[in-house]
Amino acid sequence: LPEHNHCICRRLTACMEHIMPFLIKFLMGPILLVSQGTRDYNPKQMAIREKVFNTIVSCFKRHGAETIDTPVFELKETLTGKYGEDSKLIYDLKDQGGELLSLRYDLTVPFARFLAMNKISNIKRYHIAKVYRRDNPAMTRGRYREFYQCDFDIAGHYDPMIPDAECLRIVSEILGELDLGDFHIKVNDRRILDGMFAVCGVPDDKFRTICSTVDKLDKMCWEDVKNEMVKEKGLSEEAADMIGQYVSMQGGMDLAVRLLEDPKMSQSKQACAGLSDMKQLFSYLELFQVTDKVVFDLSLARGLDYYTGVIYEAMLGPAGAEESLSVGSVAGGGRYDGLVGMFDPKGRAVPCVGVSIGVERIFSILEQKAEAEKVRTTEVQVLVASAQKNLLEERLRLVTELWNAGIKAESMFKKNPKLLSQLQHCEESGIPLVAILGEQELKNGMVKLRTVATREEVRDSCVCVCVCNSLIAIKSRQC
Amino acid sequence: LPEHNHCICRRLTACMEHIMPFLIKFLMGPILLVSQGTRDYNPKQMAIREKVFNTIVSCFKRHGAETIDTPVFELKETLTGKYGEDSKLIYDLKDQGGELLSLRYDLTVPFARFLAMNKISNIKRYHIAKVYRRDNPAMTRGRYREFYQCDFDIAGHYDPMIPDAECLRIVSEILGELDLGDFHIKVNDRRILDGMFAVCGVPDDKFRTICSTVDKLDKMCWEDVKNEMVKEKGLSEEAADMIGQYVSMQGGMDLAVRLLEDPKMSQSKQACAGLSDMKQLFSYLELFQVTDKVVFDLSLARGLDYYTGVIYEAMLGPAGAEESLSVGSVAGGGRYDGLVGMFDPKGRAVPCVGVSIGVERIFSILEQKAEAEKVRTTEVQVLVASAQKNLLEERLRLVTELWNAGIKAESMFKKNPKLLSQLQHCEESGIPLVAILGEQELKNGMVKLRTVATREEVRDSCVCVCVCNSLIAIKSRQC
Repeated sequence: LPEHNHCICRRLTACMEHIMPFLIKFLMGPILLVSQGTRDYNPKQMAIREKVFNTIVSCFKRHGAETIDTPVFELKETLTGKYGEDSKLIYDLKDQGGELLSLRYDLTVPFARFLAMNKISNIKRYHIAKVYRRDNPAMTRGRYREFYQCDFDIAGHYDPMIPDAECLRIVSEILGELDLGDFHIKVNDRRILDGMFAVCGVPDDKFRTICSTVDKLDKMCWEDVKNEMVKEKGLSEEAADMIGQYVSMQGGMDLAVRLLEDPKMSQSKQACAGLSDMKQLFSYLELFQVTDKVVFDLSLARGLDYYTGVIYEAMLGPAGAEESLSVGSVAGGGRYDGLVGMFDPKGRAVPCVGVSIGVERIFSILEQKAEAEKVRTTEVQVLVASAQKNLLEERLRLVTELWNAGIKAESMFKKNPKLLSQLQHCEESGIPLVAILGEQELKNGMVKLRTVATREEVRDSCVCVCVCNSLIAIKSRQC
Repeated sequence: LPEHNHCICRRLTACMEHIMPFLIKFLMGPILLVSQGTRDYNPKQMAIREKVFNTIVSCFKRHGAETIDTPVFELKETLTGKYGEDSKLIYDLKDQGGELLSLRYDLTVPFARFLAMNKISNIKRYHIAKVYRRDNPAMTRGRYREFYQCDFDIAGHYDPMIPDAECLRIVSEILGELDLGDFHIKVNDRRILDGMFAVCGVPDDKFRTICSTVDKLDKMCWEDVKNEMVKEKGLSEEAADMIGQYVSMQGGMDLAVRLLEDPKMSQSKQACAGLSDMKQLFSYLELFQVTDKVVFDLSLARGLDYYTGVIYEAMLGPAGAEESLSVGSVAGGGRYDGLVGMFDPKGRAVPCVGVSIGVERIFSILEQKAEAEKVRTTEVQVLVASAQKNLLEERLRLVTELWNAGIKAESMFKKNPKLLSQLQHCEESGIPLVAILGEQELKNGMVKLRTVATREEVRDSCVCVCVCNSLIAIKSRQC
């Protein structure tokens, strides 16, 4: 008997295997999915996104930035050779005849192409747009294959560190205004890193690879990082230990001053150039009132190849907090003086410095915060309702009057909606006012206006004036 | 001798052919191009674009719409079978492992997929985003391979023609507010077209192909359209002539009433359903105060397969004007009651009606208009300048004070800029105010504020208050 059961079991399983695809097709029906690593934004998410963008754009505009836009795909060769190992993450378009195209990987390379193509030698611009990376992202941490970047860059030949300091002031303003709690910004300089590697005895050809190991210090402990340097990358134990001493250093202008007098560091011309610029940077940050948010941190490395000077990265939480608890970097950037020259026919360089705000992580944080809250997804100020049947025409006439006056208004699309369902719609979507039409009021040429929250009612012959007054009253009560 | 010359000529040509690619490479240098049919937007174009979007979004919000966003690429199968012959214009992504993806072709199919996937049965939403078509566009007429669509749609089971009328009201509001001159909106109904084809004796299987020939009436004269019907598509001469009589008809509610009594048309149930809805539509349009802009035009066909009821298209210029002079359609849409059901597992239908604003053509028109004009690309309110050397620190301190107060301000990135170049910068970028620092004012704890246009100057100890007052004064002078 057990054998018999087993047999039935096996047959059932085999049968299920045949049926399953049809069952799934039957249950799921047609295609209902978005592609891996992408997402739709529903109205609530869009309301949050709009608020974040408004804060960011206001800040960019307050600092005098213009904006540009570039196509979502570039010629493949424009992107080739700009991202090092990460190039494998670029999305290519299918060759359907014509040019070979790729989806943009960031906004910095298209910006450099734009500057060179239009022979622009100075501009302060922002660019908010989606970029694409064929990554295997941790979507719960707010990382996607399609994601927004909000970039602010300053291009042009200027006196050192003034634009760089403004970028840091901008990060500080934006993170402060978004009300994400405490945050701090780490700064370092590629020249200081390279100088440090040189004086610690790292061979020239190992600078980049050792640099990317240092970059892992935000995810790995020093022991593991040292192990990778010595065992995997063949660095001497002494060199690694010496690096270890430097990368544990954090401070402000004082640290820059101290390192300028450091017997080893001061031997590197590069390091000295970076350190005196760092000193200068902190003096401007003081004037910009942001020194309390900025930490000079020798362990900050950043992955991208194109940086040539100052680099920075902003994290949530106070400085020195356990990194593993943080959501990671929410903004990052630096100076890249060589990139535009790669596109210019004559190799003419345009020095640039910029910052990218990691809005997807910020969206995730704010979406989580708003999970329990009610977020309005429309801006309707007044619903035109009717208390009796057969008043559709009167409703449409009134809503037209309101639209003509620039008032945000709607009326239900049913001929005879119930008053209760009209009032419920106001509650659900947060509409503050309802204009209720009834036979009696119509006879007297009046309209009844009710404040939804308080149920206060007024009657008036001019609904537009009445709506405006009520909105002002509601606003003053909320203040 | 002539032969000798000829020979030299040939050799030169051959030589040039060899040299040209190198010469081009030498002259042009690295890649400086955007891909065919796409374009960058420079700051001036972006300023125009922002203004257009603000007008459109304000209108959508005034009508109570929420907004959503969807990824730029969809699973290839989501788009398959939705666009008929135009499917060949879809951009596919390269198969780099994983899913097969395509760039979205419009915003309507992703919207229908979104509704089905999230089981949403009613929503009023707008969506502004770029779509992609591998077309050979006439770029001078404002058509690109990457272009914006601004869509407004109403999904849900409602009483007939109320949402449809609101869509037409929205088109009318937007085109009016964008100040593009006169315009008119043609409306028709797929059911009226199909009924007309039936009573004219078009065989059922030729409805679609004859419909797309009728669609060409905005580009071709009736004679050519008739020729195509009879000679290419094998329609009888009599049927074509009968169609010719109908498609020349234009009117308002009166035409719908007349056709309902037309001995032939009244034989078609479909046509009657369409015509009585058309009557109803015009009664709502009257309440919405837009009948003067809307023409019931039996020649309007529209290409897309998914329309099931009312269709419309807006053109610039007065009704009946020479079509060839116009820039073509600037908005279009209609009712599509079957599309969501194609994505729903149970085939559950969600009736939809919507409109798409053709913003690229609108951008082109406004860009041409603005060619000679000065358009501000930043919103800076005040430039912090210095009249003497060595005042960088004071400038940075003051600009920080202004930013802290939420004022849009900038200062030049040079240590010692010339006063003249600072004032020139104000003139060029339309900055209305300049705060000029000088030794004397600093000693007295004052700042000098100059209105750029009038050269009026005031001195004050509180620059923020002073800036705000001056801005109000400038604004009131402009009114």
